[in-house]
Amino acid sequence: MVMTTREELESVCKRRGFIWQSSEIYGGEAGFYDYGHLGARLKDSWEEQWKDFFLSLDQNYHLVYTPNILPYRVLESSGHVEHFSDVLIKCNRCGNSFRGDHLVEDVTGESAEWMGKDEIKNKVEELNISCPDCKGDLGDAEDFNMMFEVDIGPKGERKGFLRPETAQGTYMNFPREYRALRRNMPFGLATVGPAFRNEISPRQGVYRMREFQQAELQIFFIPSIHDALFEERLEEVAYTEIPVMRTGDDMKKMISVDEIKDLPAYYIYHLSKIYEFYKDIMEIEGDIRLRELSSEERAFYNKIHFDVEINMKSLGGWKEVAGLHYRSDHDLSQHQEGSNKKMSVPADGERKVPHVIELSFGVDRNIWALLDLGYRTGDRDWLTIPDKLAPYQVAVFPLVRKDGLLEKSEEVFNKLNTKFRTFWDVSGSIGKRYARQDEIGTPYCVTVDYDTMEEDSVTIREIKTTEQIRVSITQLEEILQKLTEKEKLFDDYMG
Amino acid sequence: MVMTTREELESVCKRRGFIWQSSEIYGGEAGFYDYGHLGARLKDSWEEQWKDFFLSLDQNYHLVYTPNILPYRVLESSGHVEHFSDVLIKCNRCGNSFRGDHLVEDVTGESAEWMGKDEIKNKVEELNISCPDCKGDLGDAEDFNMMFEVDIGPKGERKGFLRPETAQGTYMNFPREYRALRRNMPFGLATVGPAFRNEISPRQGVYRMREFQQAELQIFFIPSIHDALFEERLEEVAYTEIPVMRTGDDMKKMISVDEIKDLPAYYIYHLSKIYEFYKDIMEIEGDIRLRELSSEERAFYNKIHFDVEINMKSLGGWKEVAGLHYRSDHDLSQHQEGSNKKMSVPADGERKVPHVIELSFGVDRNIWALLDLGYRTGDRDWLTIPDKLAPYQVAVFPLVRKDGLLEKSEEVFNKLNTKFRTFWDVSGSIGKRYARQDEIGTPYCVTVDYDTMEEDSVTIREIKTTEQIRVSITQLEEILQKLTEKEKLFDDYMG
Repeated sequence: MVMTTREELESVCKRRGFIWQSSEIYGGEAGFYDYGHLGARLKDSWEEQWKDFFLSLDQNYHLVYTPNILPYRVLESSGHVEHFSDVLIKCNRCGNSFRGDHLVEDVTGESAEWMGKDEIKNKVEELNISCPDCKGDLGDAEDFNMMFEVDIGPKGERKGFLRPETAQGTYMNFPREYRALRRNMPFGLATVGPAFRNEISPRQGVYRMREFQQAELQIFFIPSIHDALFEERLEEVAYTEIPVMRTGDDMKKMISVDEIKDLPAYYIYHLSKIYEFYKDIMEIEGDIRLRELSSEERAFYNKIHFDVEINMKSLGGWKEVAGLHYRSDHDLSQHQEGSNKKMSVPADGERKVPHVIELSFGVDRNIWALLDLGYRTGDRDWLTIPDKLAPYQVAVFPLVRKDGLLEKSEEVFNKLNTKFRTFWDVSGSIGKRYARQDEIGTPYCVTVDYDTMEEDSVTIREIKTTEQIRVSITQLEEILQKLTEKEKLFDDYMG
Repeated sequence: MVMTTREELESVCKRRGFIWQSSEIYGGEAGFYDYGHLGARLKDSWEEQWKDFFLSLDQNYHLVYTPNILPYRVLESSGHVEHFSDVLIKCNRCGNSFRGDHLVEDVTGESAEWMGKDEIKNKVEELNISCPDCKGDLGDAEDFNMMFEVDIGPKGERKGFLRPETAQGTYMNFPREYRALRRNMPFGLATVGPAFRNEISPRQGVYRMREFQQAELQIFFIPSIHDALFEERLEEVAYTEIPVMRTGDDMKKMISVDEIKDLPAYYIYHLSKIYEFYKDIMEIEGDIRLRELSSEERAFYNKIHFDVEINMKSLGGWKEVAGLHYRSDHDLSQHQEGSNKKMSVPADGERKVPHVIELSFGVDRNIWALLDLGYRTGDRDWLTIPDKLAPYQVAVFPLVRKDGLLEKSEEVFNKLNTKFRTFWDVSGSIGKRYARQDEIGTPYCVTVDYDTMEEDSVTIREIKTTEQIRVSITQLEEILQKLTEKEKLFDDYMG
């Protein structure tokens, strides 16, 4: 049985050491979350797997790190100073603030994210919406810029913002990296780090945070030259059937990549690779869809836009966790204009501004998806999570703490700990120790018992089936390696 | 020959793809830096090694991640709102801002960091210091709080700050993690992430940034109970001789840890482990010292304080890159008072507020130290850097691109790339390709030549000696493994 409410899942995450509201001892601050000792491990593993997977697509896809604080001019050029706003409506009675589109959505049940200030104002009047908190009259609709502003230097000489997305740092580095990478194109610049949005009224837990973690990859290329290259690479795609929901469709369909050949090869290739990441690394299958956004839904500079959506019970259904955006030459052109620095490269006998295709992942949302899809309650509480992502991959227990079993188990722990994320637990009954590992998603538990002392073998228990096998210590590492690398199944070792 | 000026080293770092000033196309912003494609790899490796080393000291040392934005109350309790300031002096003529202590230091040559507003004001008058930029008259001295302030929520309802250090997030999590970790003490909470200080006038490149990366580990313990435990662990220390400079000494001495037995065991243990990290992981030996700070130099809540200092030519000598601070129960007591939440635990038959010992590392400063100590110019430009930290560990070349050598080299690359950070370079002469890897610190270059096609062997060239050995492809992975893990030396394989 899976958990069905956000509150229930949040409560488990808090007790176990995964995620909780930040500054908790001061009553918390809406929109900010801490990763505890298990959550931090899960986040590290996810980010490591993400980097491994996407940076290995091409030797010329690289990581960069850029600051969280950006100068005013950068975000003026990118258009964020002018356009990065939500519609704010305050209650005239209690003074609480609301996102205008959310007020409308709560009544109509339909997305209102695309609506402007005037449309929302009209809708609120038409539907006679009052304050959800106190039923008071709502005030006027206004545009509220969601960027956090900071003063750089003493006495506010220079204005800056916390970056609302990580991408601007990679765009600005295009010319320098183009030279450092010896003018080889296409190339990609990825980054993993925080982004900040001063949400009017954060709801839905880690799904909408004021400070969140992004993992993004921007690929710079010239469509007319490089589409052929990506066409060739379509052969490297692992799954030729992908779960797609095109504009106008009312549900997802498993379709062959041949059926979306109206999209360019660079788009199909990266969309397929994103699906491969979800299927192979995050091991999500049925509860995922790649949904195409209509021209009203997507930003004007996103010429093609699919969101990855996961069906999360705790958030009431399909929710965006990643996106693939073909942004044309919009970003580099904006910075070329704003900075007066040349962003074009020689191509087709002239100079062209490279185009960008952007892979954008919300790290926290993806972590949440793993927890949402993975937690099970019922006979026992347990978390099913891919072996490669689990906070701990192996736990080692002595059956009892005497007769040399404690020391032997420490020996086994020390050996395994260099290869796997390993936990050593020596207190409480074996049943309790299994239960604790079930709750935090440790796929394998290794127990040192009296037989170990005689024949140098241990048991391995699998979380999914709770079945056990007995293996010799000399083979232990190799077997765990094959299991965690998915070269073998637990079943293959059963008698 | 090593590089001697910061400008020279900065220029190399920029050309090669390591580090440069952020928002470069907009003229840059003082105090902010980008990590390019090589710098990001180096930073990732350093952070990974740091986590591996310090979190493996105790199974109960864990990682957590907490937000960059903290509510006002948190930093009020910690004392940062009141005390986290530098003395600011502005020029009456040109309006430029200066750090008061730096103005004094530049004239006296002695540290003035400990001086308060009035002391600096008097010193500036006494020494008749004028504006370094325009020689104009300097204005009054004032306290300038170095935290970046942000408004949380619409219309500035709530004030917050960008965290000036990562530690507050771990302190606040003490009570929750104490429970999640089943009340086992001592335990440690580490975190790696950005911190922000609105420096008045950042100088010295990445050494003093407005946004920088910290790696910190806070250990919570009860001295009266746990000192005995750390006393036992002194046996696990790899080096019993450490380079120490005590208060009052005018130079460092290699001394036995027995000679600092006036310090408590928990302090000696962690100090020795920090030295071990520098010696074994960063491979820094002569240019390091552990300098004790006098009571004037250290903050009042740091009862014992040593800085790790590295002798960096590009920064004019010994510079702090890390510190070990015994902070007593100061931090948890402050938050207990500020939050009204109990921070004490049962100990010695009563309730006690745990003490904290803090390991604090400036990530950027440590990266800079590696580059400063590692870059060599002369006959060739090359970077010596530990195998485990190098951006790329191995480069693979085909001697020529024909006769099947290109394909064979790709095969070798694909095999090595799953185990090592590997680069594949097929363009330019072999000499040029070696030179390029020398410049970015790749310790081993593997070349596929005509003999490879006949006898399945390749050459490995070592960066330090430029010597080559020929090995069979079947042994290649194992040999590189032994070299990078330091189980063997290159010399051991020489004919």
